[in-house]
Formats: sequence, structure tokens, C-alpha cells
Amino acid sequence: MDKVRLIDIKKTILSDNYDLAAEIRQELRQNGVFMLNIMASPGAGKTSLIIETLRRMKEKYHFAVIEGDIESQVDAEKVAKEGVSAVQLRTGGSCHLDAPMIKEALKKIDLSATDVILIENIGNLVCPADFDLGQTRKAMVLSVPEGDDKALKYPLMFSVSDLLVVSKTDYLEYSDFNYEALKERSEKLNPQLKIIKTSAKTGEGLEDFCLWLQEEIEAARN
Amino acid sequence: MDKVRLIDIKKTILSDNYDLAAEIRQELRQNGVFMLNIMASPGAGKTSLIIETLRRMKEKYHFAVIEGDIESQVDAEKVAKEGVSAVQLRTGGSCHLDAPMIKEALKKIDLSATDVILIENIGNLVCPADFDLGQTRKAMVLSVPEGDDKALKYPLMFSVSDLLVVSKTDYLEYSDFNYEALKERSEKLNPQLKIIKTSAKTGEGLEDFCLWLQEEIEAARN
Repeated sequence: MDKVRLIDIKKTILSDNYDLAAEIRQELRQNGVFMLNIMASPGAGKTSLIIETLRRMKEKYHFAVIEGDIESQVDAEKVAKEGVSAVQLRTGGSCHLDAPMIKEALKKIDLSATDVILIENIGNLVCPADFDLGQTRKAMVLSVPEGDDKALKYPLMFSVSDLLVVSKTDYLEYSDFNYEALKERSEKLNPQLKIIKTSAKTGEGLEDFCLWLQEEIEAARN
Repeated sequence: MDKVRLIDIKKTILSDNYDLAAEIRQELRQNGVFMLNIMASPGAGKTSLIIETLRRMKEKYHFAVIEGDIESQVDAEKVAKEGVSAVQLRTGGSCHLDAPMIKEALKKIDLSATDVILIENIGNLVCPADFDLGQTRKAMVLSVPEGDDKALKYPLMFSVSDLLVVSKTDYLEYSDFNYEALKERSEKLNPQLKIIKTSAKTGEGLEDFCLWLQEEIEAARN
């Protein structure tokens, strides 16, 4: 009984969210802004990926970062240290970002002077997959220590993402992580999924990620 | 507007859940059964902790395991291989277990012939913290690769847990994880929190965890 009620509620929330997300997407398109929704488990390396990207690309493009956190603003502070403007969304308990929150955050960003917005979603491999934020693309980060079986257990996240960043590849040599198994499981769920292997520690793959991002930014401009 | 509605819905759900959890707790007490709710991010090592515990303790106590997963039943199959009965709860999208699901699972477990039930919650450091399952104790697992800052970002999970298992300590030497910083942050949120460091790979701390569990099982019997 409880389960059925939960599902009805979820449908209504998702439908309201969807309308607002469409509005946001339209606004971004009019301004030629590319927005990336970055999702992952806690500690998978979302913030490191963002910081490393800013260091490599902030001279070339105008960035803004939206940081979602349940509590704290340590990540927004890290972004600000790079000289890039960050909007902190403190959800105070909510386990995902939604379109109304992004709408609020966008009020603090001058879209006409922005090329690209990176959203760091709440650390959660489940709920954020359900919520359209009006982003241009969705990326998920999966770190090697989390294991190669995650596509079996959290299939929705793999299905809705455009890009899978496999992070912390420097741990590969100490781990029984099977990259080929992950790749096969992911592509079975989502044949269009692009995969990039990275390590913020060794620098592996960060250029590949930046190249992917650059192509997307340029495509959004036209 | 949307946010306020969400919160009201959450309150109603949590209040219904709370009543049922109290019922479950009462039933366990009458049967002298200890039930542990194990929560963690995806890939933190919940299943490994359960399997290693079963191997060390299944001859001494009658175990049952409730496996929560959004999809798949790979974990329940691993438990069954150890000769211990497992109930698989497939939530089909829900990001946490709740008391109604546990009530259903308990129908398949003979409480009069059981000493201890281990619940593996959905891999999620956020939502499961909100839901009382009627458990005797709550344990959270945090793996070294997730980082020492998680108490700042996911404070509720640290606040509601009785035990923090720091897993994958074999990664400590390759990582900048600061155990003392984690300890300080965790104890600030929850001075009663007990912390045990473990590695399923090297075996570190598994005996400590089993000792803790044994004391809890014995206390529940009386």
C-alpha cells in the first residue's frame, strides 16, 4: 500500500520537474550555454574532475559551477579558489538536485557571459538519475574502488548518462576491478554511452575529458 | 513551493514508517533476535563484510540475511553460497529500504530459529539514514577510497549510526586518507559512535567486528 502511494507521488513530482527542466534547457540554448550534470557516488571524484578541468580550460572558456551538497560548502570553496564563480546549493537533507533548485541557482549566473556550467550533483548513484535538471548532457563518474558490478546494481544511472568517467584508475593495479566487464555491462544498458578512463592523481585521461567537453561546448554555441 | 510539498510528504511517509518499525522491533525483542541495518555508499564493501562475518560466525549462531537491491540478486546468491538463508528485496527503483519492506521480508524468516539478521541496505549514503527499519543497531561502512571528508557532507548517516566500519584499509598506503581527521569529524557529530577499521583483503579488524557483533547478539538474547 505504502509503495503504491510513493509511486504516485513520485510521478507528480517528476512531471512538475520535467516541465521546469524543459524551460531551463530552452534558456540555455538561447544563450548558447552548455550545461553538464555530473553524478556519482560519494567520494567517486566529482570535485577533483571539476577542479582539474577548470585548471586546464578556464582560460579558454567562461565557466560557472553549481555545487550541490546536503551540508557544507567545502566544494564550492575549492572551486572559488580556482577563480571560478560557484553557486552552492545546500539541500539540507534532499538526496538529489531537482530543476527548481537549478532554476534558483541560474538566477545568480549571468548566462550571456557564460560558456559552460558544470553541476556537481549530490553524491548518490540512485536518486539523481531520476531528475532532469535541464542539462545539455549527463555524465556519471564511477571510481575503480567501487567495483565493476555497479552497472548491474544501479542500471538507471548508466542508462541515462551520455558519458561514463571511470575515475581513480591509479587504483587499478591494487584492485581486481575488471574494466572489460564494466564496459560490457555498461554498453549493454546503453550502447551510446561514451567511456573515458581518468586519474586525477596521474593525470590519465583528463585531456580526453577536456576534449570531449570542448566539442560539446562548441556544439552548444552554434 | 515544490520543496515545501516534498517535505510534507516526507513527514507522512516517515511517521507511518516509524510506527511499523516499532512493531518490528517489538517482534524481534520477543524472539531474542538481534538485527543489524548495514548502510553505505555503493561499493563500500557491505557484501564483503557480511560474507566474511558469516564465514567466521555461522557455526556459532543462526544467521539470516536480508539483501536490498534496486535490481539484480547477485549479493543474495553470494550469501546463499555460504549456506545461509537470504531474502532478496528488489526495490525496483527505490533508493532505500523501509519498514514495510522489512515486514515483508520477515515473513520468510523463522524468528524462533534465528539469532541474528543482517540487513544490507541499498548502496546510498543519504536516504537510508532517514528510515528506521526496526533494527536493533545501525552500522555504516565507509571505505578509505571515498575520502575522510564524508562526515562533513553526509552528517545524518554518521549521526544515526551506532557503529562506523572503516573498510578497505589496505588502500590506506596508496591514499591521502586522514584517519584521525575522519575520527574527529565523526565523533563531533556522534560522540557515542564506535569505530572499527577493517580490510576484507588483509583480514584486519574482522575479528573486532565479530566480537562487537557477538556482544550485541548475546545482549539481545537476554
